[in-house]
Amino acid sequence: MIKAATIADVKKYVRECKKSGKSIGLVPTMGFLHEGHGSLIKRARKENDIVIVSDFVNPTQFGPNEDLEAYPRDFDADCRLCESLGADLIFHPTPEEMYGKSNYSKVHVDKLTAGLCGAVRPVHFDGVCSVVTKLFNISEADRAYFGQKDAQQLAVVSRMVADLNYNIEIIGCPIIREEDGLAKSSRNTYLNEEQRLAAPVLHRALAKAEEQARAGEKDAKKLCAQITEEIEKEPLAKIDYVEAVDWEELQHTDVIEGKTLFAIAVYIGKVRLIDNFITE
Amino acid sequence: MIKAATIADVKKYVRECKKSGKSIGLVPTMGFLHEGHGSLIKRARKENDIVIVSDFVNPTQFGPNEDLEAYPRDFDADCRLCESLGADLIFHPTPEEMYGKSNYSKVHVDKLTAGLCGAVRPVHFDGVCSVVTKLFNISEADRAYFGQKDAQQLAVVSRMVADLNYNIEIIGCPIIREEDGLAKSSRNTYLNEEQRLAAPVLHRALAKAEEQARAGEKDAKKLCAQITEEIEKEPLAKIDYVEAVDWEELQHTDVIEGKTLFAIAVYIGKVRLIDNFITE
Repeated sequence: MIKAATIADVKKYVRECKKSGKSIGLVPTMGFLHEGHGSLIKRARKENDIVIVSDFVNPTQFGPNEDLEAYPRDFDADCRLCESLGADLIFHPTPEEMYGKSNYSKVHVDKLTAGLCGAVRPVHFDGVCSVVTKLFNISEADRAYFGQKDAQQLAVVSRMVADLNYNIEIIGCPIIREEDGLAKSSRNTYLNEEQRLAAPVLHRALAKAEEQARAGEKDAKKLCAQITEEIEKEPLAKIDYVEAVDWEELQHTDVIEGKTLFAIAVYIGKVRLIDNFITE
Repeated sequence: MIKAATIADVKKYVRECKKSGKSIGLVPTMGFLHEGHGSLIKRARKENDIVIVSDFVNPTQFGPNEDLEAYPRDFDADCRLCESLGADLIFHPTPEEMYGKSNYSKVHVDKLTAGLCGAVRPVHFDGVCSVVTKLFNISEADRAYFGQKDAQQLAVVSRMVADLNYNIEIIGCPIIREEDGLAKSSRNTYLNEEQRLAAPVLHRALAKAEEQARAGEKDAKKLCAQITEEIEKEPLAKIDYVEAVDWEELQHTDVIEGKTLFAIAVYIGKVRLIDNFITE
């Protein structure tokens, strides 16, 4: 497995791959890889000749009071995981390499970014869309793999690709969970023991609602109220949002019509966790 | 020459070209082609296996009080010119084809868009960057050709490509002029006879300043004052701006240090004309 730290090195590698007609799958990550990322890499491995994993804690998607500095990093462990799953190249640039001395360009997606996490993280999705655009261009990937755990990110990136005619297929992959249902996340390492025990409340609340939706319940408002009620039983939990939105444009809905995203953000202590499900 | 009206048709054609390893040159235009566009097509013809000309009056780069409806159009004449210059494909989509039912994504470049035309045309460069991004992706061009007449556009697009790592080379081409020095522009057709006679004042004023800059004059402020004075001699002319900026970031400068852009926008009657020169 190649470890590349510069854009030029990745581009050189990619040019050679493209010349010989190889397909490229990209798994964009912020590192500190877990089984969730692993599932994306495995899927990319199956569907492409070449698998590139990017491992970059992107400063532009963190707000001024967010956890950029604290965000966990372990590049050696990331390399071991990527290699064991058959990745061909891991791209691990510095912020200076990615953004140079100055960088004035960004990609913005309206409407889909206004609610959910976008409401409390105003710069987040511009940062995501811009870095993902850069990674798409650097990797010239045919496919890129995103976890459904970050459902709004998946919707926003898919929208950006459609709107701007990017030549890449966005593939959303299922949420990977711990045995007790907690969605895998690099930020789970922030939880202390007590908080870790409380955290599965997110999934528990969502799972009950999902079951009812599957059984035919169409009242999204009622399901959101039930999710809220369930989470409020947990004393360590403080709700940021519990929302039902249409999966196309992420607009609030009281009724399940077509694909509907139920998304929640909950503080367990100071740790903000997200989880969701999407109806069929 | 192929006339394509849909994105899908262009993408299909481009896929075939790419498979056989052909290079693609793109000339993005708003149609009503003149010799300025012609010079871009000729240059693209020399440097690429395939030449694609896009012919699209892009609504998103016009402000609410600008000339979107009035903007001149003549697709048949455009086709004749493109064919005579050896273009392989002309892409002439409708706004609906380009933007679908809804389009929420845009590319924004900061700083370089704040001054000059950006100051009075606040949405203009977002529209340009976004449509150009779409055209780059649709055409998968290796090179794209822009006239230096729209110098700020050339700088902004070049910056976007560098910042976001687009795999395309931006090639700026010299301004093409009428015999009396007026820079060729589709908007020149708006001028009545009297205005047309007054319009070369832009070039006259710039040419004098350029000559002094070439002779070693470094005082950009003084040159701007002289340009202003020269234009004010023409009773039909009303200055929008006369500015000297560094060519890298388009920031105001009083002194010529490195490449410096002298850019002007002048109303002749109600017709807004632009022109410029760049020092070595």
